This record gives sequence, C-alpha cells and structure tokens, in this order.
Amino acid sequence: YCKRKHKDKKTLTLDTLNPQVKAVEYAVRGPIVIKAGEIERYLEEGGTKPFSEVIKANIGDAHAMGQKPITFLRQVVALCTFPELMDSPSFPEDAKRRARRILQGCGGHSLGSYSASPGVECIRKDIAAYIEQRDEGVPSDWENIYLTTGASDGIMTILRLLVSGKDSSRTGVMIPIPQYPLYSAAISEMDAVQVNYYLDEDNCWALDINELHRSYQAAKQHCQPRVICIINPGNPTGQVQSKKCIEEVLHFAYEENLFVMSDEVYQDNVYAPDCQFHSFKKVLYEMGPEYFNSVELVSFHSTSKGYTGECGFRGGYMEVINMDPEVKAQLVKLLSVRLCPPLAGQAAMDVIVNPPQPEEHTFKQFHQEKSSVLGALAEKAKLTEKILNAVPGIKCNPVQGAMYAFPRIFIPPKAVEEAKALGMQPDMLYCLRLLEETGICVVPGSGFGQKDGTYHFRMTILPSIEKLKVLLGKVRDFHIGFLKEYSGLE
Amino acid sequence: YCKRKHKDKKTLTLDTLNPQVKAVEYAVRGPIVIKAGEIERYLEEGGTKPFSEVIKANIGDAHAMGQKPITFLRQVVALCTFPELMDSPSFPEDAKRRARRILQGCGGHSLGSYSASPGVECIRKDIAAYIEQRDEGVPSDWENIYLTTGASDGIMTILRLLVSGKDSSRTGVMIPIPQYPLYSAAISEMDAVQVNYYLDEDNCWALDINELHRSYQAAKQHCQPRVICIINPGNPTGQVQSKKCIEEVLHFAYEENLFVMSDEVYQDNVYAPDCQFHSFKKVLYEMGPEYFNSVELVSFHSTSKGYTGECGFRGGYMEVINMDPEVKAQLVKLLSVRLCPPLAGQAAMDVIVNPPQPEEHTFKQFHQEKSSVLGALAEKAKLTEKILNAVPGIKCNPVQGAMYAFPRIFIPPKAVEEAKALGMQPDMLYCLRLLEETGICVVPGSGFGQKDGTYHFRMTILPSIEKLKVLLGKVRDFHIGFLKEYSGLE
Ligand SMILES: Cc1ncc(COP(=O)(O)O)c(C=O)c1O
Ligand SMILES: Cc1ncc(COP(=O)(O)O)c(C=O)c1O
Repeated sequence: YCKRKHKDKKTLTLDTLNPQVKAVEYAVRGPIVIKAGEIERYLEEGGTKPFSEVIKANIGDAHAMGQKPITFLRQVVALCTFPELMDSPSFPEDAKRRARRILQGCGGHSLGSYSASPGVECIRKDIAAYIEQRDEGVPSDWENIYLTTGASDGIMTILRLLVSGKDSSRTGVMIPIPQYPLYSAAISEMDAVQVNYYLDEDNCWALDINELHRSYQAAKQHCQPRVICIINPGNPTGQVQSKKCIEEVLHFAYEENLFVMSDEVYQDNVYAPDCQFHSFKKVLYEMGPEYFNSVELVSFHSTSKGYTGECGFRGGYMEVINMDPEVKAQLVKLLSVRLCPPLAGQAAMDVIVNPPQPEEHTFKQFHQEKSSVLGALAEKAKLTEKILNAVPGIKCNPVQGAMYAFPRIFIPPKAVEEAKALGMQPDMLYCLRLLEETGICVVPGSGFGQKDGTYHFRMTILPSIEKLKVLLGKVRDFHIGFLKEYSGLE
Repeated sequence: YCKRKHKDKKTLTLDTLNPQVKAVEYAVRGPIVIKAGEIERYLEEGGTKPFSEVIKANIGDAHAMGQKPITFLRQVVALCTFPELMDSPSFPEDAKRRARRILQGCGGHSLGSYSASPGVECIRKDIAAYIEQRDEGVPSDWENIYLTTGASDGIMTILRLLVSGKDSSRTGVMIPIPQYPLYSAAISEMDAVQVNYYLDEDNCWALDINELHRSYQAAKQHCQPRVICIINPGNPTGQVQSKKCIEEVLHFAYEENLFVMSDEVYQDNVYAPDCQFHSFKKVLYEMGPEYFNSVELVSFHSTSKGYTGECGFRGGYMEVINMDPEVKAQLVKLLSVRLCPPLAGQAAMDVIVNPPQPEEHTFKQFHQEKSSVLGALAEKAKLTEKILNAVPGIKCNPVQGAMYAFPRIFIPPKAVEEAKALGMQPDMLYCLRLLEETGICVVPGSGFGQKDGTYHFRMTILPSIEKLKVLLGKVRDFHIGFLKEYSGLE
C-alpha cells in the first residue's frame, strides 16, 4: 500500500543539509548557554545546586541584565505605535514632535506599513545629520544610509555582496582574532575563506599593522582577500583603537584595494579616560581626498548597544561610502527582497541619532539616564579588570570600551589533557565547570578565536555592580580551586 | 606618490559582485516602482501630468493604502513598549493582561532584550494553542514554532537549510507560476534550480496534480527536486485551494519524498463564499498517521496580511513538522547567528493568535474592526473582478482570497513587437504606459512568471472603494485606448 519511494527516510537530514550551515559555529548561544538554560529550569523545578541562580554574563543583552530603557526613546516608539497617545498630556511635546515626524515619513502615517527598503527617508536624513555632527563636519549623504534589522543583518548583507557562492572558496575575508562570532558564522555560511589577523594581547589587544601584512600575504597564497573587517571598540576584547592605528588600517586597505567593513556598534561605549572613539570615516576623511574618495567603506551601528541597549528592537544602520553606483542598485534590490527593516527599530534608531537637545524639556531626564548607564558601565569596566587581575593565573587587559572583559586564564596541563581526552576545548571544560559549580555563564575564548595554546573566557560587564562583585568573587574562588585541583596541589 | 595597486578601480563592481546577487529579480519593488517614485517627486515639485496623484497598487501594504490598525493590537504593543502605560485608565485590562504576560516572557521584562532565537516562549505557546484551535484539535507542539522577521525571513531560512551552496545547482525548488517573487529571488540568490509548475488559469488558478508530475519529471532530468513551495491563498493569483487539491499535493510530496513549504500568510483572507482555508497541516493529519508522521512540512504565517496588515512590524512565525531533530538543532543555530526576530513583531503576532474573546470587554470593538477590514476586502475583491471582466481584452479570475487580482490582458501583436524592439517584456511596456498616462502603479505579470505568450498584471485590492473604482475606471479607459492604438483601429 505504501508508495513512498524512500520509506522512513527524511528528505532533510544532517547528510543532506546544506554543508555550509553545518559548518557554522556560534558560541554566544552555544552549548554553554543551552546547559545554562537546563540548569535554570532544574532550579525552577525545585532542584538544588551549590548556587541559587544562574548569572548570565554570556551575551551583551543589557535589559536582560536589568538595565532600564531610556524613557524618551520608549515614549517616542510608543507614540508611533499608538498615535492616540498624541493627545495624552503625560507624554512630552519633544517626544510627540519626533513621533509625528517619523509617522509623517511612513506610508499611511503608520508604523504598520512597509518602509522603502533602505528605510524611512527622514530617519536616513537624521542619521546623516548625526554622523556629520559626530564627525565634526565630515559630510554624510543620507542616500548612503541604509537602515538594517540590527547590525547583524547589515553585516550579512554586505558580505553577501562580496562573497560569491560559485567561487566563494576564493574570497578571503580578513577578521580580527578574537572576533565576534557573527563574522566566522557568516563566513562559514557563505563558504568564504576566513583570514585571521591576530590582535596583540600584550598590547591591550591593539591591532598591529605588521600582523595585518603577515596575515594578508599568507592568505594570498590560497585565496583572494577582498575585505577587511574591524570591530572598534572591540568585541570580545574591549579595546578602543587609536587614530594612528586606524590610519594604518585604512592606508593598508587603500594600497591593497580592500573593501573595509567597520563594526562600530560600540561607538558610545568608551570608558578609559585616555581613549576616544574615532570613526573610520572621519579618519579616512582626514587622510585626504585621495583616500576619502576611493576607499570603499561600510560602517555599522545598532540600537542594541551604547547606552540604550535596545537589542529586541533589531534596529541598526550602515553608512556606505564610495560604493560603485551599480553595486548600490544591486544592494537595494537585495534589501528589497526582504522588504524592509522593522519600523519600531527604525524609530528607535531615530531617537538615538536625534536625542533631546539641551534646550528641550526632556533633556535633563534623558541626560541623567544616559550618564547613569554609561557611568555604571565605566565603573564596572574598572572593577572587573581590577578584581580579575588580582587572581593568580588570570590576566585581564583594561576594558577600554564595549561591554566585555576577555581575560586570559591559565589552564594547568592536566586540565588541558583531560579536556582533550573528552574531545573538548580546554576553556570549554573550564567554562562548563564554572557554570556547574557556581551558576556563572560565560563563553569560552575558543568561541571567539585565540592564539594557539592560550585560553580565555568572555564575560559581559552588564550585571549590576552588586551582582558583578558576587560573580567576580565566585570566578576568583573557582579559579583558585581549579588551579589547585589540576596542579595536584590538593 | 600613490601606492594604490589598482588605481581608480573599485574593489566591488558589477564584475566582482556575487553573481547570484546579480541574478536576483524582484518585481514588486522593481523598475515600475522606481519610476512611480520619480513621478511622485515630480508632481510634488509642481510638475504636471494628466493625473494628480500616483495610486500604488503594486504591493500588499494595507496601511500605506489607508487601512487603519486594529486598536487592540496597537494597545498591547504600546503597553509592552512603554510599560508605564499599565497605570493608564485609558488602556483596557484585556490589553494590559496580554502585555504583562508577554513582558513576563522577556529578559528583564523588557521588549529591549534579545529573546531566545526561536522567539519568546509564551508567544510560541500561544501560537501552538491557536493552531490547535484553528485546525480543530490537530495537535501542535510549541517547540515546533519559530518566530521570524516577517514570513520572508522564515522562507529564506528554510531554503538556506535545503539548498547547499556547493552543489546547489543540483537542488530543485518547485514553485508555482505565477509566484510571489521572493521565491525566485531566494532561489537565484542561493543558486538553486527553479522548477516551475504552472497554475491552471482556465480553472481559477487551481493547482493541477498532473502538472506537478510533469514538472517534477522534467526537472529530474537536470536536478534533484527536493522541495515544493505552495502559496495558499495565492499571491499573485488570489485562488484558494480545495481540500482535494491539497491532499493530492501532500500525497505527491509523500511519494516523492519532497519537503513541503506551505506559505499560508493569507489564511485569514478568504472572500469567496464557496471557498474555505484548509491548512496543509490539518489536511495532512486527516490523511492519517502514515502521512502525518512522515511528510516534512513547514508552514508560514505573518503579521503583514490578514486583517491586521502590520507589515512594518516584521512579525511572523513558522511551524515545522517532522523535521529531523538534528536538523532542527542546526536550524536553531542558524537562527541564533541573527540573534532573534524583533520583539514588537513577536508581540504583534501574539495578539493575532490570542485576540479578544467574546467574553472580554474589548471583543466588540475588535470584532467590529476586524469584520470591517475583511468585509471591505471581500467587497473590493468582487468589484475588481466584475469591472475588469467587463473590459474587452481583459479576463480576470475571481479573487477568492489574498489581496490581489491577476488579470490576463490581451496585448496586440504590434505592441508586443514594439516592446521586443525596446528589449522589454510586453507587459512591462503596458504597465509603464499605464503608469505614465494614468498614475496607476501595478506590476507586470512577467515579474511573477506566466505561460509564454500570455500577459498579465498584478494589482492589489487595497485602495479604498472610492479609489479602487477610479483606478479600475482608468485601467478600463487605458486598456481600450491601448488596444485601439496598437490594433491600428484609430
Ligand atoms: C561587534 C558586534 N557587532 C554586531 C553585533 C550585532 O548586534 P545587533 O544585530 O543586535 O545590532 C554585536 C552584538 O553583540 C556585536 O557585538
Ligand atoms: C505569499 C507571500 N509570502 C510571504 C510574504 C512576505 O511577507 P512578510 O515578510 O511581510 O511577512 C508575502 C508578502 O507580500 C507574500 O505575499
């Protein structure tokens, strides 16, 4: 009776799955995080552990760690969502003005319409104005601005243009190591060649131009490096690049005709007093027209980080400089297939680039909320570095910016052996045990890449000061115990 | 002085662009729509045309055409966005209860946190409950539900699993012709093989099982067809499939081990009194366990259509049945790279699957608003068919569902010749002239696919009744004039 040609055989199995999907790795939500979820459920159901709660320091998700939204941003988005609130006296006029303007730019004056694929025109204009101001007058053309569904979407889209499926194994994409694993995942998915350049841990994770040259020359033996990705401020490394370093990168890209992707989602997250955010675009401008009119540069921003931490809105934009107009038309076509980025995210992005001004009534509260978030992050950055560096066998570079510490951890040879016997990265073993014994969830350095034979973990500095102190104390105790256990000193 | 290796040469040009991107076509936002935008700007700047406004009937964007949002949905999303509104007496308790529940499921109780990659757990549960109810008790497991960034995102993601980049030219994806061009675009981008099966225009665009067999057998000569896509109710064709037809498709998929992708975003848009929406899942269930436990089926839904028309929120979900658990783990990994779908869209989806119930205070208004939207659509569906069929040289199938008419238009041989001389599809010439002479923006049938030698255009039925009447009258006059001109009868 059964006429099925291949009975009991699925059409889609691990064997028939797109192998590029299989090759993707994504540590930030990997096995450790799945395990953490299991433990949380176990605790909820009344199970017992040597700790009462899981502290998640694995992902840059500020609101999940208790950070409060910026009131003004939410007011504007709520007004856009439910315009009847325009009549409510409890919403400030400054917010209403912005909401009205955004809705004016939407089809049918509704957040429920599709926008043009590159985003709502007035929001693109606000972003361009913001960039000009941020970069002290360097011109920004709103038609170079494309709203995105989080920075992730923008990064994937630009890589998609650059990496051709057919001879993709020939396209080299230069990325920092350690990196944010979206990059390696995208490279795997698109079957490009990942070209690693190593950040200099001994030099506060600075980008070393000689290492760039080395990496490029080595890659040229087996692929065509066409694009260089930079994350500044760095994730997971937290460094903020100097102007000189950026100049060197841009000069290098200029000489070698590399397309530059500059991930600047942490541009508002700079804490070290001796550091400053320099946009790649501004530095390029200051290098002169020879550079500014030729280097192809895309920079990415997001609502997810900064002082707003609005990850769930999936807002973001990219600014595209010196892109061939024909390619730009292709980019718009590609974006149009997915129709448009979410409108609430676009509205949130608009508030970030067009926040209350000193002369506005809402400025004081806005400024207070913003400073409070950034002040706490700066304090936690210092605290984390200080406490970690006091632990024997842990060495942590200053957290100059972003939201993460990426300490180097000494793992005794016996633990390394044990991990290898288990078919596991040594820092995975370390992080799994940390999780099981203390409830602290951090991500192994191997998920971001690191020099062979070195081990790290990445933790966010997002928990509240109190929780962060508890967390760091537990890490210290765990680490000391771990060293004892595996050094046979017990 | 200039050390640039390839001076004046861009890194990324049409020549070096990923050729799969170049191959993508996307008519819904193609040349006609770009032209429409130009004309709009020209009119705004005081230019004159034989018409005073452009009427856009090119895209299923209800709010842009003046449809009002469902109050209750917006109330819930506004409450989630700005929870201070929980204290406002002007928001109904029914909406507050839902918003509280959604926020309870969000990290830090904030719409600003990333959700789990498959979506907020309680929303997934609400969706599963909704499906069970819709399908009169057919079980739905919430762990099979994945929230998406609009249905577009879900469709792309599932295709990504099925189409492998390396030997992609061997994976056949069966799609209806005419089709919604997201499918052909995705197939081009992923370099799969598009396998066309033609809907039967003479039979109200029904899907004919013999044509499926023909298409499959023909495709097997040069590729491996692995997946069949169905759009029901149809876009651009507006047909609603009969239960018998769905059974035949599922039986065919069962026999040939095809993965089934069922695009059901118009499930709430059925107007013809003799038609009813049957979900592929329910029909599969009723075919018995032999089928229900084996056919791999994904169905897609969206906030963009139905009676809500919330396109800008980019909400949607897919239900995945009989997927190999190992593949599911890979799917989750792939989703996690993009972090999560937008939370406001997830919240909007929750309202759609969990709307006010008859015993709730908000029911009356909700029901009124919903009926009013669907009632107007039904009226416009009939009106469109009737007026178009009264025009000589236009033949339009009944608009049984969805939001579009796809009339067949007679184009005189002289016009066909003229178009060919211009290197243009004949229906593109027709639609361009329609736009330039009347301001009406519709999409040529060639953007969706059609039998060789037949010509169509797609128009939405979304304009208000008054506008729709004007539009249809102008189409009639234009068509008559066009026939006259090219038949040499003038
Ligand atoms: C360096 C970097 N880039 C991009 C992203 C993506 O962020 P989103 O897609 O939420 O904007 C992140 C998120 O953590 C990041 O750290
Ligand atoms: C058949 C069909 N599928 C999917 C989509 C995508 O809709 P969205 O991504 O807005 O959910 C559309 C949009 O028009 C459609 O018509």
